Amino acid sequence: MTHPLRLGIAGLGTVGLGVVRIVQKHADLLQARSGRAITISAVSARSRDKDRGVDLSGYAWEDDPVALARRDDVDLFIEVMGGHDGPAKDATEAAIAAGKDVVSANKALLAVHGQALAETAEAADRVIRFEAAVAGGIPVVKALTEGLAANEITRIMGVMNGSCNYILTRMESAGLTYQEVFDEANALGYLEADPELDVGGIDAGHKLALLSAIAFGTQVDFDAVQLEGIGAVSIEDIRQAADMGFKIKLLGVAQMTGRGLEQRMSPCLVPDTSPLGQLQGGTNMVVLEGDSVGQIVLRGPGAGEGPTASAVMGDVMDIARGLRISTFGQPATSLRRARPARAAVPAPYYLRLQLLDKPGALAKVARALGDAGISIDRMRQYGHAAPTAPVLIVTHKTTRTALDEALDAFKDTGVVSGDPVAIRIEAV
Amino acid sequence: MTHPLRLGIAGLGTVGLGVVRIVQKHADLLQARSGRAITISAVSARSRDKDRGVDLSGYAWEDDPVALARRDDVDLFIEVMGGHDGPAKDATEAAIAAGKDVVSANKALLAVHGQALAETAEAADRVIRFEAAVAGGIPVVKALTEGLAANEITRIMGVMNGSCNYILTRMESAGLTYQEVFDEANALGYLEADPELDVGGIDAGHKLALLSAIAFGTQVDFDAVQLEGIGAVSIEDIRQAADMGFKIKLLGVAQMTGRGLEQRMSPCLVPDTSPLGQLQGGTNMVVLEGDSVGQIVLRGPGAGEGPTASAVMGDVMDIARGLRISTFGQPATSLRRARPARAAVPAPYYLRLQLLDKPGALAKVARALGDAGISIDRMRQYGHAAPTAPVLIVTHKTTRTALDEALDAFKDTGVVSGDPVAIRIEAV
Repeated sequence: MTHPLRLGIAGLGTVGLGVVRIVQKHADLLQARSGRAITISAVSARSRDKDRGVDLSGYAWEDDPVALARRDDVDLFIEVMGGHDGPAKDATEAAIAAGKDVVSANKALLAVHGQALAETAEAADRVIRFEAAVAGGIPVVKALTEGLAANEITRIMGVMNGSCNYILTRMESAGLTYQEVFDEANALGYLEADPELDVGGIDAGHKLALLSAIAFGTQVDFDAVQLEGIGAVSIEDIRQAADMGFKIKLLGVAQMTGRGLEQRMSPCLVPDTSPLGQLQGGTNMVVLEGDSVGQIVLRGPGAGEGPTASAVMGDVMDIARGLRISTFGQPATSLRRARPARAAVPAPYYLRLQLLDKPGALAKVARALGDAGISIDRMRQYGHAAPTAPVLIVTHKTTRTALDEALDAFKDTGVVSGDPVAIRIEAV
Repeated sequence: MTHPLRLGIAGLGTVGLGVVRIVQKHADLLQARSGRAITISAVSARSRDKDRGVDLSGYAWEDDPVALARRDDVDLFIEVMGGHDGPAKDATEAAIAAGKDVVSANKALLAVHGQALAETAEAADRVIRFEAAVAGGIPVVKALTEGLAANEITRIMGVMNGSCNYILTRMESAGLTYQEVFDEANALGYLEADPELDVGGIDAGHKLALLSAIAFGTQVDFDAVQLEGIGAVSIEDIRQAADMGFKIKLLGVAQMTGRGLEQRMSPCLVPDTSPLGQLQGGTNMVVLEGDSVGQIVLRGPGAGEGPTASAVMGDVMDIARGLRISTFGQPATSLRRARPARAAVPAPYYLRLQLLDKPGALAKVARALGDAGISIDRMRQYGHAAPTAPVLIVTHKTTRTALDEALDAFKDTGVVSGDPVAIRIEAV
């Protein structure tokens, strides 16, 4: 294999330009390590005239990414446009139909259409790789698909949206409300054009769904991810959690249970001494647990030009070296459809509620929990500032079903004001 | 590739038995993910009669690992015996000569003979993989060789000997001396038969040398690793470091400098808030820094049956899937000989010295540092307990050469009692 591997790059945003820069800067290194030259034949983006600060004069230009994907002088199609439908999907399908391998950074496309794309690619003996779609520069897809390939994966967890982690850690360190930090982050350009993709947990949910498919040999099923964003996390809960030795993180958790595949992306409490609890700012962290290996923790930059381009080029190097691996680690036709399970695994919960200052109020709350089979690990009551006082409860392990029963019963006690806050405490 | 991949396992200690257990337990999983059956043809160990708690009756037995390596029914030779010469080396060479691929957990063999073995294997178009030789279950060889293959690696760091990290963290948590914890660890079987391999930094130095070769495209050169064990680390220094916000770790650092390749395995101070500083007990951690990706941190179990067997089998799965990669990430014949550089990169240092209670003593020490071009960041003097009082100094960045000059000059001041302690502070 001494002929060059010729790339076509669709998308010249941050990631696409990062890829161009690596190919230009490290031509010798890439060739020494992969055994063949890696060159760029053609690029494509919306605007040809924009000054991008990179010399693109040596590459053919295509206005249409589908035309790029079909070019005879492209062996490998790099899709770094984004969007789960439209041009990204059309061009990826065109590339596979034209016999090209694909490297993609597009989590949305793969989380929604990954199963169909993988089946099409594998039927045509083509490879789709997507390291850059999950946790930026961290080689987590590789670790899971290859390094831990001999493990039955028991659980995966991750903080995989840097913007959300930035918001949560900044709320705590600066003592600001969610809305204040959200506005600040938005003004700084830290959030997607549609911020709900970040703060609603959608972007991180896409990533979790992709890792789940690899980990459990199941068809990627983003719709089955229980999504809960960080918009309802209050500075009070962050402070109270900290007082009790916890941090609040937007945490993705996936595990196969007797009742089906549980996939959650939601705010959770984690111990502040754990690696996840200590994660500050925009950094990502993924925890992989396997029956032989135990627990592996991977930490690194989850976004940005260099890290994401590094991940794209890692996939390119694999293909240049001749690695042919199924998109999700085993043939797409062999991936099972998993039954979705809603928070099947019991856990302790953090509860914060406003208790009316009436005699026997606490006893009524305790009884409602007891009736639902929930026992109390720790409880704190603050002052007696009429008409209500906050009460914090950490329960022992319980199911979400039992907890919902207790939350319902709270309404009938006549002593709980407003909606209680309930946040799962994840053992990490 | 639908014929089975047939393994021959040389060595039935912890790791070898772990590999047998995975193959027996996960036959379906391994086949689903790699596309072919993975079977064991034959095994070899010193004693055939020993009850190992695993059914080996389905496998041929060889007393001689060289005979095992040459068997016609073995496609892939797994070397999990250990030792950098003797049977491990003979059998590995025999396997390559007989046209087998090799998966090894033997850091000593590869750190000493890796270059020659890689050249021999690559001339014969054979593959040697050694994920299990470095940091147990953490897929760090894969991350460095493949995931970050498009990066110029700027630095690698790691806590890669769990026994040493256990000793250092236990000294701090229990307030015990080095010797007390050493004896305890030895009695618990935490240390190698020759404990100097662990506490002298040799085992961790082997691992660093292997990662360096991949990272910098250089011939593995264990002899060039500046080794310093943990035997001289005192509980006083651990406590004083903690007071100033540092932890003491046996830290491996490798980086390419203008003066050559620096490879160090020695006690260092790291900030107690950093991932390395927070690492407790027997866990391993490797930090990889690349020009595009920035910093990636990998953490996990560094030893034990399951983790190490997981790493061996990850390599086996790669080979089953058809990955053919050079031992050190690029052809062995293209690896450069690096000039060794001794602590070339400047760093701040922690100094602890016993100062005689004489007028102007501190001024004399400060002048000796100043004369060597070293400025002081922080200094603490404790009491005036005659005849000496401890003084702690944290310097600004300086070279080891300048520091050695100052340490020499201390002797002529007439106010420093005994040998000062000097420990590098690594920016992590």
